[in-house]
Amino acid sequence: MAYRLTEARQQKDVEQREQILQLALARVTAGGFAALTMQTLADEAGIATGSLYRYFRGKGELAAEVFARASQREVDALAEVLCAAGDPAERLAQGLRQFARRAWDSQRLAFALIAEPVDAEVDEQRLLYREAYAELFVALLEEGMRSGRFRPLPAPLIAACLVGAIAESLVGPLSPPARAARDAGHASLSLEHVSQALVQFCLCAIGAPLPEEQP
Amino acid sequence: MAYRLTEARQQKDVEQREQILQLALARVTAGGFAALTMQTLADEAGIATGSLYRYFRGKGELAAEVFARASQREVDALAEVLCAAGDPAERLAQGLRQFARRAWDSQRLAFALIAEPVDAEVDEQRLLYREAYAELFVALLEEGMRSGRFRPLPAPLIAACLVGAIAESLVGPLSPPARAARDAGHASLSLEHVSQALVQFCLCAIGAPLPEEQP
Repeated sequence: MAYRLTEARQQKDVEQREQILQLALARVTAGGFAALTMQTLADEAGIATGSLYRYFRGKGELAAEVFARASQREVDALAEVLCAAGDPAERLAQGLRQFARRAWDSQRLAFALIAEPVDAEVDEQRLLYREAYAELFVALLEEGMRSGRFRPLPAPLIAACLVGAIAESLVGPLSPPARAARDAGHASLSLEHVSQALVQFCLCAIGAPLPEEQP
Repeated sequence: MAYRLTEARQQKDVEQREQILQLALARVTAGGFAALTMQTLADEAGIATGSLYRYFRGKGELAAEVFARASQREVDALAEVLCAAGDPAERLAQGLRQFARRAWDSQRLAFALIAEPVDAEVDEQRLLYREAYAELFVALLEEGMRSGRFRPLPAPLIAACLVGAIAESLVGPLSPPARAARDAGHASLSLEHVSQALVQFCLCAIGAPLPEEQP
């Protein structure tokens, strides 16, 4: 009987932890890591602030786990397109368009994952995920070079160029959404326009044929 | 006589402030903003820590001024090449090569200016200088489009792509120097190789002729 009680308790802990993570992810999606405080989160979860520490050693650990969960979702979404079958140039174009749309639809979350100043534990996760994105591009670049669709290039360096160009143009402080947020008079480009320009920039940069030029 | 004494004192203050800034810049050049502490700086300047606050309201103000001084030097160096006379494509290639060489020669400083986590006052400066870089590229892109050397493109967005690609491939955590620093077994590319690949990436991306293809 004691065993069953313990099991039930463990199950409840797992569920409570999961609920806290989901509430935290919702907060970060709405207001970035700046909006994630233990106090507010405990209030939302309907538990004492001190109880949060039964599930997470501190805010850093919690924020890092929220970051990893949200980032893994983005990496998985990109991987699904980049690692599919078919022409590597077309897959790169599709991956860029999808990334642009996802960043556009969740601007606050995209900023939190890519550019918001965060503390060290989250920054460690950011480095890991930045490498995960780069690895996806390295694999695609190598495949495209083997099949002669891309020109010969140093894949890890060019993957870094792609990651930088994408992050800065879609999410960073120079991106149209960030510019529009700083300056109300700034006429932002449409997603379609941005997406098209980014695809052209990246494909031309690696010597890949543009989608419309394909047979 | 009192007037002369005050003047002499003011002159001494100006010199002392300048000396502190130069010492601070040297510290950041050697060890990044992490190495900049009021205590060490006061020791080096041979004054009491409290006296530093006669010249700077706090570490944030001091760090922001060091950042601005170092960044302005970089922006000026890039502007000198990008705004010179001659073919815009060739100027872009030269500007990229120069930026790569400067980042390579002062890796710790480049990281401090572009990627090191910093506090809010320095981050504000970083945004201003990121915009200064972007503006240089916007002006060059518009000139190159007018003269038909670059294909038509949304200049502010593409300037953001260029800033992102350059920063990430030369300085950020995915750059060869950063990779080599994390992983001693990582064979880093040479500056020449990196520089050449970056020039090719950026020029192709905007439809500019590569230097070797020029008449």
